[in-house]
Amino acid sequence: MQLLKDKIVKYGEVLSGNVLKVDSFINQQIDPELTMEIGQQFYRLFKDKNITKIVTIESSGIAFGLATAIAFGNIPLIFAKKHFSVLSNNYYQTNVYSFTKKTNYVVSIEKDFINEQDNILIIDDFLANGNAVIGLVDLVTQAKANVNGIGIVIEKAFQDGHRRVEKLGYHIESLACIERFEDGEIFFR
Amino acid sequence: MQLLKDKIVKYGEVLSGNVLKVDSFINQQIDPELTMEIGQQFYRLFKDKNITKIVTIESSGIAFGLATAIAFGNIPLIFAKKHFSVLSNNYYQTNVYSFTKKTNYVVSIEKDFINEQDNILIIDDFLANGNAVIGLVDLVTQAKANVNGIGIVIEKAFQDGHRRVEKLGYHIESLACIERFEDGEIFFR
Repeated sequence: MQLLKDKIVKYGEVLSGNVLKVDSFINQQIDPELTMEIGQQFYRLFKDKNITKIVTIESSGIAFGLATAIAFGNIPLIFAKKHFSVLSNNYYQTNVYSFTKKTNYVVSIEKDFINEQDNILIIDDFLANGNAVIGLVDLVTQAKANVNGIGIVIEKAFQDGHRRVEKLGYHIESLACIERFEDGEIFFR
Repeated sequence: MQLLKDKIVKYGEVLSGNVLKVDSFINQQIDPELTMEIGQQFYRLFKDKNITKIVTIESSGIAFGLATAIAFGNIPLIFAKKHFSVLSNNYYQTNVYSFTKKTNYVVSIEKDFINEQDNILIIDDFLANGNAVIGLVDLVTQAKANVNGIGIVIEKAFQDGHRRVEKLGYHIESLACIERFEDGEIFFR
């Protein structure tokens, strides 16, 4: 998606440890026009997949999840929460290991919101090692719903998330796929 | 806003401690149509206030903030993050006390995203004691920007947030204002 790549080149900052800082239009400030266009693009990519609901994870996935839910004709958006619920009986929960923070965290979705009739499109802002997305897949699978697609805004292709997710048999698409960083410059695949 | 009140009555659950659970359309599952209508309603209420940016707080504020930013003609949305940044130099930060969790947490906004020319509309999903909103007001004020309005989706009028915010001199509007809970029933003002 050219508009997105242009933004990444113009406003993204490459920090140490292969971190891409895109707070000015993805992770803290949101550009509504770009966000809605991203939703439209996910619709174009997955419109034949009989999607019934969008699933994402708080916080940065929510805006892109909402834009996608609107593009699909106002289907429900569910965002998984990064916390452990003591009411564990009412929630699907799974552990996700964060390489950035070097800790495990729990993500959860209330059981009422997904069921076995659902065809889910998972949306997230970033794909690196794939742990967050694989956690979301686990939640959807616990609900016996189908994961009919995975849409990623920015993928770091030099980490192994894409390979891991495809190996599980899922259809995954990224709107901007970064091959490498070199001297602070961003190279797309 | 009648559509919102109807949803609250139909799907809201009153839990112990005057907690209103609206996870099925506000706090975990999002109804895109209702959400966009809420954005339109905030636009109608604040359209004469020369708003340049929307400020909200993660996570549940993001969807309503985005809907409002779209209704205002695609102005930027900024969501404050609930974490302390060690790069404190680049962030406006403030402490918020959570009565629910009985702890302080830090909310932060990167300095680049708000400046003294900005007229800010603060959006949040809930108003109870007002601490989160007053924290957002503090961040905007640190940036020397103007708080030209505060829009709340659901207000618990029996707690003192509204009074505290008005006392500070701000224009605040709530789309559904709950006067009391009684035997699990919800009474609006």
